Amino acid sequence: MTEAPAASYPIDDTNRVKRRHQRAHYDHATVHALLDSAALCHVSYVIEGQPYCTPTLYWREGTTLYWHGSSASRMLRNLSEGQPACLTVTHLDSLVLARSAFHHSADYRSVMAFGHARLIEDQTDKSRALTMMVDRLFPGRTATLRPTTEQELKATSVVTMDIEKASAKIRAAGVIDDEEDYLLPIYAERIPVRTVIEPPEPDGRLLPGVTRPATLSAFRTG
Amino acid sequence: MTEAPAASYPIDDTNRVKRRHQRAHYDHATVHALLDSAALCHVSYVIEGQPYCTPTLYWREGTTLYWHGSSASRMLRNLSEGQPACLTVTHLDSLVLARSAFHHSADYRSVMAFGHARLIEDQTDKSRALTMMVDRLFPGRTATLRPTTEQELKATSVVTMDIEKASAKIRAAGVIDDEEDYLLPIYAERIPVRTVIEPPEPDGRLLPGVTRPATLSAFRTG
Ligand SMILES: Cc1cc2nc3c(=O)[nH]c(=O)nc-3n(C[C@H](O)[C@H](O)[C@H](O)COP(=O)(O)OP(=O)(O)OC[C@H]3O[C@@H](n4cnc5c(N)ncnc54)[C@H](O)[C@@H]3O)c2cc1C
Ligand SMILES: Cc1cc2nc3c(=O)[nH]c(=O)nc-3n(C[C@H](O)[C@H](O)[C@H](O)COP(=O)(O)OP(=O)(O)OC[C@H]3O[C@@H](n4cnc5c(N)ncnc54)[C@H](O)[C@@H]3O)c2cc1C
Ligand code: HEM
Ligand code: HEM
Repeated sequence: MTEAPAASYPIDDTNRVKRRHQRAHYDHATVHALLDSAALCHVSYVIEGQPYCTPTLYWREGTTLYWHGSSASRMLRNLSEGQPACLTVTHLDSLVLARSAFHHSADYRSVMAFGHARLIEDQTDKSRALTMMVDRLFPGRTATLRPTTEQELKATSVVTMDIEKASAKIRAAGVIDDEEDYLLPIYAERIPVRTVIEPPEPDGRLLPGVTRPATLSAFRTG
Repeated sequence: MTEAPAASYPIDDTNRVKRRHQRAHYDHATVHALLDSAALCHVSYVIEGQPYCTPTLYWREGTTLYWHGSSASRMLRNLSEGQPACLTVTHLDSLVLARSAFHHSADYRSVMAFGHARLIEDQTDKSRALTMMVDRLFPGRTATLRPTTEQELKATSVVTMDIEKASAKIRAAGVIDDEEDYLLPIYAERIPVRTVIEPPEPDGRLLPGVTRPATLSAFRTG
C-alpha cells in the first residue's frame, strides 16, 4: 500500500504530546512502522466507569487496527458497538543511568492510537481479517493449515478500529546530564534492552518428514 | 517483607478471570513475583469518557504500586485524587504455531491490578518513594549519585495506588492441537520470545578512573 508522503494523523487535545513534545510524531510513516514492529499491544476501555488495560495481539491494515478473541470475551463485547478505545504499542529500548537520580531515564518507542471499536459482523470479512492476522506474522502459513471450521469462526470475534488520532513518542538519546554534573566522578551508562526471537521448538508430535517452512523465519518483533 | 502464605487478592466481577479461568492466579506470591519481574507497565485511566493507555515505569512495595513523572503530567494530574486505574504488566513468552489457525496462540504472563490512584503529597514520602524506584532497579545507586535538589523534587510527581484487586493470567503450554489434527502432515512449533539485557554502554564523558559498580549488573527484566 502506498501512502501519501506527508500523510499525518490529525492532532487535538486527546493525542497532542505535551510532555517532551519534541519526541512526538504524527505522520503515518512513523506511526505505522511502529505498529508493524510488534505483535503485542495493550487496549484500554471502560466498563461502568472502571478503566481496563488488557494485553492482546493486534494487526494493522492501512489506518485500521484489528484484534481478536472469543465471541464471549468481555473485552470484545464491550468494544463491539463503537465504544472509545486506546490501543498502545511499546518498546522499552534501554534504561539510562545518569549522574543524578533526576536524569535517570529510558529510551523507548511507543504509539497510542485512538478510535471507536466495533465487531466485524460479516463472516467473510472476519475470515479475511483472521487470515491477515496469521499471514502477517507468518507469510503463507494459512494455506498450509487445516482449514478453519464454521464453528471455530463462529466462536471467534474480531474487533476493528479505524485510527482516528494517533501519536508516536520516541526517545533515543542515552545519557543526558546537567552540564555541571559531567564534572562529577559518577558512573553513567545506557543499558540496552531488546526483545529477541529464540530458536524455535518444533512440536514433539510432528509426523515423520514434516519440516519447517522457511517462511516461518520471517517473524520479527521489536 | 514476609507475606502470609495463603494471602490472596479478593475476587469480584472486575478481576475474575472468565476466559481460560484455569490460567488465573490471585495469590500475592504469584501476582507480586510477576510485578517484580518487569520495569514497564501500561496504565489505563479515563479523561472525559475517553480511555487512555500510557506506558510508564512502576515499582511495588507490599501491596502498593507507584509510578512517577512530571508534576505537569496530564496522566498524573488525572490520577491524583483517587481516580480508578488499571495497571498491567505483560510478558509475551512465545508465539505458538498449531496445525489449525484456530489453535495458534501465545505463551504469556500478565498481571492486571486495580485501584484508585493518588499523588504522594508529603515531600519526604515522595523522596523515599523515588529512592525506592532507583534502588530497586540498581541496588545502592542513590547513595552514589549527585543528590536530588529541592527544585527537582518539586518538578516530580509520584502516584501511589493500593492494589484493591488483581489477577495474574499465565499460559505456558506450547502447542495444543485438536487430537485428530496430530495426524495431519502440518508443521507446528513454539517460537520463544525473550527480553534480554545487552552489554551496557558506558557514557562517553566519564571522568578518568570512574568504573562500573558491580551492583548495576543486578538489573533483570523479563
Ligand atoms: C517504555 C516507556 C517508559 C516510560 N516511563 C515513563 C516514566 O517512568 N515516567 C514518565 O513520566 N513517563 C514515562 N514514559 C512516557 C509516558 O508514556 C508519557 O509520555 C509521559 O508520562 C507523559 O504523560 P502525559 O499523559 O502527561 O503526556 P501528555 O503529553 O499530556 O499526553 C498527551 C497525549 O500525548 C500522547 N502521548 C503521550 N505519551 C505518549 C507515548 N509514550 N507514546 C505515544 N503517545 C504518547 C498521547 O496521545 C497522549 O494522550 C515512558 C514511556 C515509555 C514508552
Ligand atoms: C501477551 C498476551 C497476548 C494475548 N493475546 C490475546 C489474543 O490475541 N486474543 C485473546 O483473546 N486474548 C489474548 N490474550 C489474553 C487477554 O489478555 C485476555 O485474557 C482475553 O482476551 C480475555 O479477555 P476478557 O476481557 O474477555 O477476559 P475476562 O476473563 O472476562 O476478564 C475478566 C478479568 O480477568 C482478568 N484478566 C483477563 N485477562 C487477563 C490477563 N491477560 N492478565 C491478567 N488478568 C487478566 C482481569 O482482571 C479482567 O478484568 C493475550 C494475553 C497476553 C498476556
Ligand atoms: C531508575 C530511575 C528512573 C528512571 C529509569 C526514570 C525514567 C523516566 C522516564 C522514561 C521518563 C519519561 C521521559 C519522557 O517522557 O521522554 C521519566 C520522566 C521523569 N522523571 Fe524519571 N526516572 C527515574 C528516576 C527519577 C527520579 C529519581 C526523579 C526525581 C528526582 C525523576 C523525575 C522525572 C520527571 C520530573 C519526569 C518528567 C519529565 C517530563 O515529562 O518533562 N525520575 N523518567
Ligand atoms: C497467528 C495467529 C494467532 C495467534 C498468535 C493467536 C493467539 C491467541 C492468544 C494468545 C489467545 C489468548 C488465549 C488465552 O486467553 O489464554 C487467543 C485467543 C483466541 N483465539 Fe487466537 N490466535 C491466532 C489466530 C486465531 C485464529 C485464526 C482464530 C480463529 C479462526 C483464533 C481464535 C481464537 C479464539 C476463539 C480465542 C479465545 C479463546 C478463549 O478465550 O477461550 N485465533 N489467540
